[in-house]
Amino acid sequence: MNHKIETKWTEETTFIVSQSGGQFVLTTDLNEDESPRGLRPKALMLSALGGCTAMDVASLFKKMRATPDGFKVDVSAHLTEENPKYYDSVKIDYYFYGKNLKRDKLQKCVDLSLEKYCGVSGMFRQFAKVQSEVFFEEI
Amino acid sequence: MNHKIETKWTEETTFIVSQSGGQFVLTTDLNEDESPRGLRPKALMLSALGGCTAMDVASLFKKMRATPDGFKVDVSAHLTEENPKYYDSVKIDYYFYGKNLKRDKLQKCVDLSLEKYCGVSGMFRQFAKVQSEVFFEEI
Repeated sequence: MNHKIETKWTEETTFIVSQSGGQFVLTTDLNEDESPRGLRPKALMLSALGGCTAMDVASLFKKMRATPDGFKVDVSAHLTEENPKYYDSVKIDYYFYGKNLKRDKLQKCVDLSLEKYCGVSGMFRQFAKVQSEVFFEEI
Repeated sequence: MNHKIETKWTEETTFIVSQSGGQFVLTTDLNEDESPRGLRPKALMLSALGGCTAMDVASLFKKMRATPDGFKVDVSAHLTEENPKYYDSVKIDYYFYGKNLKRDKLQKCVDLSLEKYCGVSGMFRQFAKVQSEVFFEEI
């Protein structure tokens, strides 16, 4: 299967990206209050990783009848100092919230994603140390 | 430097991602007309790649006083068939538009990005064959 995206320059270092599912602004430019005027490209790698594994897990816990009340995935990463800067270590934290969480099944969903389904984590393992942790919060 | 993103589940396989510069919806869910209801995570990898090198080039052609009238970067990639699916080959196409394009300097901007500055293309080279091509269109 082939995928394609387009990155079109508008001004300075601001671009409109068109990809599967929509368009968005990428930029390094800042507003007057120094807040970013669009998304930063490198962090999109981490969003791809968090999104890919999170979707696997959400599909799997539905199939396994282990749906929690809440779920999120945080990804944190260390960027090297020298050019070209890349992520050399990454941590994926899975948080499940709810009452009577089916912990064994939810852990299994995470394991299946990381070991079998999540292509983005497979790509990350080629250049970074990838760690993960699972948190269960009964609420 | 450390970067962090958050991927929060809303329903089915739909998530709100918060990262540097903003928030957006990631999903595999479709509208009734089968159009996507949000961005797809894997293609974000390609948008990160296109955005990263495009920003380098835009910074460089300004410094080199070689700014064209128009500029875009297309990224196309082949996804493997077996799980975990990953991008095994990637092509980056740079398009410069304008009159009297400073071709040598623009080519130099592309080379500098790919060889020195673009961390995302460095990461891609660890798992994919990365090719590039430069197109000049006098308008």
